[in-house]
Amino acid sequence: MEVVRKLERGELSFSRLEEELGNANLAAVARRLFLEKTLRVNLSSIASTILDFEELYGRNIENPIGAVQIPLGVAGPLRVNGDYARGDFYIPLATTEGALVAGVNRGCKAVTLSGGARVKVLRDGMARAPLLWTPSVEEAARLVEWVKGNLDGVREAAESTTRHGRLVDVQVFQVGNLVWLRFVYSTGDAMGMNMATIASEAACDYIARNYPGEARCVALSGNMCVDKKPSCLNKLLGRGKYVVAEAVIRRDVAESVLKARPEDIHYVNVAKNLLGSAAAGSLSFNAHYANIIAAIFIATGQDVAQVVESSMGYTWTELRGGDLYVSVTLPSLEVGTVGGGTWLPTQREALAMLGVAGGGDPPGVNALKFAEIVAAAVLAGELNLLAALAAGHLARAHKALGRGGVKG
Amino acid sequence: MEVVRKLERGELSFSRLEEELGNANLAAVARRLFLEKTLRVNLSSIASTILDFEELYGRNIENPIGAVQIPLGVAGPLRVNGDYARGDFYIPLATTEGALVAGVNRGCKAVTLSGGARVKVLRDGMARAPLLWTPSVEEAARLVEWVKGNLDGVREAAESTTRHGRLVDVQVFQVGNLVWLRFVYSTGDAMGMNMATIASEAACDYIARNYPGEARCVALSGNMCVDKKPSCLNKLLGRGKYVVAEAVIRRDVAESVLKARPEDIHYVNVAKNLLGSAAAGSLSFNAHYANIIAAIFIATGQDVAQVVESSMGYTWTELRGGDLYVSVTLPSLEVGTVGGGTWLPTQREALAMLGVAGGGDPPGVNALKFAEIVAAAVLAGELNLLAALAAGHLARAHKALGRGGVKG
Amino acid sequence: MEVVRKLERGELSFSRLEEELGNANLAAVARRLFLEKTLRVNLSSIASTILDFEELYGRNIENPIGAVQIPLGVAGPLRVNGDYARGDFYIPLATTEGALVAGVNRGCKAVTLSGGARVKVLRDGMARAPLLWTPSVEEAARLVEWVKGNLDGVREAAESTTRHGRLVDVQVFQVGNLVWLRFVYSTGDAMGMNMATIASEAACDYIARNYPGEARCVALSGNMCVDKKPSCLNKLLGRGKYVVAEAVIRRDVAESVLKARPEDIHYVNVAKNLLGSAAAGSLSFNAHYANIIAAIFIATGQDVAQVVESSMGYTWTELRGGDLYVSVTLPSLEVGTVGGGTWLPTQREALAMLGVAGGGDPPGVNALKFAEIVAAAVLAGELNLLAALAAGHLARAHKALGRGGVKG
Amino acid sequence: MEVVRKLERGELSFSRLEEELGNANLAAVARRLFLEKTLRVNLSSIASTILDFEELYGRNIENPIGAVQIPLGVAGPLRVNGDYARGDFYIPLATTEGALVAGVNRGCKAVTLSGGARVKVLRDGMARAPLLWTPSVEEAARLVEWVKGNLDGVREAAESTTRHGRLVDVQVFQVGNLVWLRFVYSTGDAMGMNMATIASEAACDYIARNYPGEARCVALSGNMCVDKKPSCLNKLLGRGKYVVAEAVIRRDVAESVLKARPEDIHYVNVAKNLLGSAAAGSLSFNAHYANIIAAIFIATGQDVAQVVESSMGYTWTELRGGDLYVSVTLPSLEVGTVGGGTWLPTQREALAMLGVAGGGDPPGVNALKFAEIVAAAVLAGELNLLAALAAGHLARAHKALGRGGVKG
Repeated sequence: MEVVRKLERGELSFSRLEEELGNANLAAVARRLFLEKTLRVNLSSIASTILDFEELYGRNIENPIGAVQIPLGVAGPLRVNGDYARGDFYIPLATTEGALVAGVNRGCKAVTLSGGARVKVLRDGMARAPLLWTPSVEEAARLVEWVKGNLDGVREAAESTTRHGRLVDVQVFQVGNLVWLRFVYSTGDAMGMNMATIASEAACDYIARNYPGEARCVALSGNMCVDKKPSCLNKLLGRGKYVVAEAVIRRDVAESVLKARPEDIHYVNVAKNLLGSAAAGSLSFNAHYANIIAAIFIATGQDVAQVVESSMGYTWTELRGGDLYVSVTLPSLEVGTVGGGTWLPTQREALAMLGVAGGGDPPGVNALKFAEIVAAAVLAGELNLLAALAAGHLARAHKALGRGGVKG
Repeated sequence: MEVVRKLERGELSFSRLEEELGNANLAAVARRLFLEKTLRVNLSSIASTILDFEELYGRNIENPIGAVQIPLGVAGPLRVNGDYARGDFYIPLATTEGALVAGVNRGCKAVTLSGGARVKVLRDGMARAPLLWTPSVEEAARLVEWVKGNLDGVREAAESTTRHGRLVDVQVFQVGNLVWLRFVYSTGDAMGMNMATIASEAACDYIARNYPGEARCVALSGNMCVDKKPSCLNKLLGRGKYVVAEAVIRRDVAESVLKARPEDIHYVNVAKNLLGSAAAGSLSFNAHYANIIAAIFIATGQDVAQVVESSMGYTWTELRGGDLYVSVTLPSLEVGTVGGGTWLPTQREALAMLGVAGGGDPPGVNALKFAEIVAAAVLAGELNLLAALAAGHLARAHKALGRGGVKG
Repeated sequence: MEVVRKLERGELSFSRLEEELGNANLAAVARRLFLEKTLRVNLSSIASTILDFEELYGRNIENPIGAVQIPLGVAGPLRVNGDYARGDFYIPLATTEGALVAGVNRGCKAVTLSGGARVKVLRDGMARAPLLWTPSVEEAARLVEWVKGNLDGVREAAESTTRHGRLVDVQVFQVGNLVWLRFVYSTGDAMGMNMATIASEAACDYIARNYPGEARCVALSGNMCVDKKPSCLNKLLGRGKYVVAEAVIRRDVAESVLKARPEDIHYVNVAKNLLGSAAAGSLSFNAHYANIIAAIFIATGQDVAQVVESSMGYTWTELRGGDLYVSVTLPSLEVGTVGGGTWLPTQREALAMLGVAGGGDPPGVNALKFAEIVAAAVLAGELNLLAALAAGHLARAHKALGRGGVKG
Repeated sequence: MEVVRKLERGELSFSRLEEELGNANLAAVARRLFLEKTLRVNLSSIASTILDFEELYGRNIENPIGAVQIPLGVAGPLRVNGDYARGDFYIPLATTEGALVAGVNRGCKAVTLSGGARVKVLRDGMARAPLLWTPSVEEAARLVEWVKGNLDGVREAAESTTRHGRLVDVQVFQVGNLVWLRFVYSTGDAMGMNMATIASEAACDYIARNYPGEARCVALSGNMCVDKKPSCLNKLLGRGKYVVAEAVIRRDVAESVLKARPEDIHYVNVAKNLLGSAAAGSLSFNAHYANIIAAIFIATGQDVAQVVESSMGYTWTELRGGDLYVSVTLPSLEVGTVGGGTWLPTQREALAMLGVAGGGDPPGVNALKFAEIVAAAVLAGELNLLAALAAGHLARAHKALGRGGVKG
């Protein structure tokens, strides 16, 4: 191809290929050819994809060269008793970590045999927190008062940029002369990050135009949002969905399915998840929410970098009679069923397996249902690992599965 | 298929299909058919995969039904001046977040035009920290002394389970009567999590057999490892690779490529990444390492749940003359070029693009080289976002790319 | 004395002496005699006190034997431009750490010469957070809704126990089946801890009597208050007074009084207080607020254990022209001018020096004024240390003062 | 007095009085007179002191005007089974918080009746962490290597400044181009802060003189020490004494003395101290170590601002048969028996009550013994509060004691 030679001679840049060739799929081919030649590699597997970059370009990816394929396994059925999700679900998990799907699957069995997971979404709102500079403590306090007194205008400006988004709260933080305005939105079935960003920019513009004092937006995201970083803030005030899921695991189920006694699982939870995390200076008091969340996020087209904050949470256990009460709390679970990667072919099918593909009716119910299912799956996966640890089976699982018998 | 009917009648469980059918690819088909029928969904996209589950089953996945496809884009070239990675690299990024690849690409341009990224791996070691119970403070202290006095035996036991793993440190923590032994291993080109788990189990078994006092393993992972949870411990003592990358961005490059002045980028970094994260109670003092790390991890077959701790880190800037010094520090970057998902077809090609597919010679150099490239890419992506924020361009990027012009 | 012999023979316990002797001062003497004899020590200095235990017993101390004397120094004058505190103040500092008073004094001079400290109290409220158990996620959510729907009753119950206390907010946190109700009170001129505890107990009793579901108070303080522990929660939501103080230090003042250049002080603040604290996993982004706060708290009869959370905060600096903008933010400063140790003879005189002894008119203004002065003193002390570090004078100060020339 | 008039006319500054009058006690009088006149207050209580400022000036205080008197109570006897402290001790507690001494006293009774507290100091070392700037990642790494290779010279320089101090460890942290060298010292019976500061300055001077590359000390304290700020670093690596104390409280003792059942105390500890602190984003997983530590620190002349980090720690409970195992872990307890305020008349008597006044033989044993006693007292106080909460007695204690029956 001529364009490949142009790339090689430096006459054309990578990111101009779509424009040059007028077709995103062709551009992907050209880029691939160039890389194969330049780097002396074979990219034929990456090339083998059902993705149509004409559709994706400018929405989900730039400089595409093909696709990565991640194995997709299924755990379940998992009985969920949510306010939105009711019934038995098969959980799609995209992972390359052996033993993960099997483990979640065992947890699903224990939860389901015990009557299922009771799940609730306690709060719901996506946040974006611009950082504003003012010259002084006085002016910063005045700005805060002004925003509180002009909430209608701020809200109108923010909401003018979006169809489904509603500004539901403005949380204010001040350090010296600096002010963070943490705008919280309900975002329907979308995870809502972009919606919140764009609406918050409009809100800031409104403030800039109308506030009579001196204030200037330093950064549209001031790290008190908090996006893709672990934080106490999100754990206390929530971001995305604040979800809790619980089950009472019967002693016989624990012993027969999980091969562990309730009291041993309970001790592991308190010593490891509470005291161990405390001693490690961790913000996350659980065993491995991140494993389950990452696998579901990849499978369903979520923003995978948000595994960071979505996986923060607390596992709590109590002995009840001879049985085990167990709950998981996820204060910052960020999920959506529209937008982002949710509409890609394989991801959409994974969402469809859960009955939550696309927008819900009314808007928002699909995302809420999805959040409940995710929390229930986290409960299953967490329970399984705690039991495996209590029974001394962790390394065994990884030896049997996950390494193909090869010595590492 | 008969087995599908058996599944429907509950006569066969999901996880027995491989055994029943004697072929993992057939089992995947059967599972898919059952799900399509039961859930009334179409899984044809998920079915369209080049993966051979005969090879993956029992290593990377259980209960497979197909694969998820993630678009793969490329940013670069990025000049890296590492101790292992030297030259210009094209960074594979698997993501569904519009504007991410374009942003990293712009950052690569700025870094490369400024002479490239200087990168160093300061520490290297994978950790696993079993939690041991003893009856008393006295006994716990005795156990600790015993382990210190019998390191050779402990090491021999641990290393007997692995070819490339070496026990390089045992870090001890005691709370009351409980003891965590944080075993740290060099793990060659593997990320090393499983290797560390299995070796640590052997070490614990050795202790259990030989320690004359009273001690019992509560959990092979006691949350002071720290795996897949954010923690101060990993930031202070490291896990995986502790990497730093830096560049001095010339003023003219900042202004022409990044459209922002060095002093504005610097102010955003200090106010947002340092003060903002502090005020949010975050453990991560950066803007979005997680975005770049998640995209590379998915592309190259890393353990994606480890984005949680791998993305912790500090961005530091200084004004030097009119130029901008910028560094990123990643204390807990967990990467490998063998094991896990690295050998899958598309992932291996992505690693090959960086010249790091498979084991290095000597073992370990490929993983070190890879870690340096990842850190350099993080530097590029971080620099780009700080500049976009400083210039007020964040929302604009997400409006232009990433949403296809559709109102959210 | 006969009672001393009884104590020796074990016929009388320590805590019964007041009852036995009918006089608290005599009881203190008896206790002292017993200890002097039993432990073979001389307690004559401890005996030398102006305190009248007849007044203190049952309010401030039990089992008294005398008093400890702490040297009291004075720094100032310090110009404060607060909303309540206006004018020049002399700051009483009780400490045994050489160089501290001298250092704060130098900071006062720099601040005052630059026009004084601008101070504002942004929020005000004392919190107590009982922890309630419920059987399930469902019931916990129901309890939360019930409390929200019965706020009037809860408030009435809480406020019935106090003259000045007002319940101003109830912040709710749920983890699994557990609920924390963080009751926030305005408490007039009192620091308000005891007031909040007693009122919260009444609120919990009200809930226990009236809530139709199943809930039980596990602990009247559930560690989300947060009292005497460092926490992100208090930094985000405040406890006691949330105060900010700032000054613009003129370059000539910085150089002549503080012997340091604004740019060097600024660099020290960013590298040490922001990045250093971040790297240490600290919750406090300052150099030594605790020193100033401890010294004032001891001097003025505050609850000294609350130095822990009162000293959390952020120092922020900016270069403005050639001058230095500096602010301190204290989100959780817990002070009072009535109650606790504020009415003791020496402590009351120290408060009187600041014009804030006893209750204000209207109630609350004395505590607010006091909080402003404390924050201004913290600003002065912090500025001084940053400058000393920037100039390389820290060790020098401790060699000259603080050790009397003796080699340690 | 003529000098008072000079002060009034601004012809003389506060800090010059000692020099002007040639006597520190006279200077204190003059300062007091000036303040009484200027502020129209009476400082006669502050004037009533046994302190001789001729001895204190230039060591413990500047600008003295007298002393503050804090009531001193005693709790005990408390049986301690330490490696250094063995026997029954009476704990001196200086506080103005009603109910505190009574509470600790009750805890002492329960612990002593159960056989006493077993205590161990696991680590011992005072830290100071200068922050050094280098131009690059490369140079920073080189500096670190150089320091490691020249430890003898660094140690010699550091130890040349002190009689008892020994440099026992140098812990290195690097972020980008910045390096923290955390020097850890054994400091005999002194808490050792000043010793560590002065020795570290000498170490830095040595590095500055001898390191062939480019490095510059930004701040002698870089906030990774960590002094007077709460931090994960100190909890993980220790500062001062790392102490653990434990007891097994017999069921009958718990029920008769503490009025609570072991299982209820255990539940409160797990739900409040572990989960509650986790949810609050706290670094301290206990109920109120700070109360006991503040009261002992004031009584014995410790650096009271260090209550901040000395009070961090973990309370751990287990049910053993019907009894309650309870331990406290204090990773960062900073105490001394020489230096600071320990030699003041009343403080020295308080130390003498514990048999730890002045230097030990060999040096260090007094401070170790003292640390053990403090930890045992913390155990007693913590146990008492947990039991009071479990029994629903917290508010009651504060109503009966601590407020003199007055409505707050």
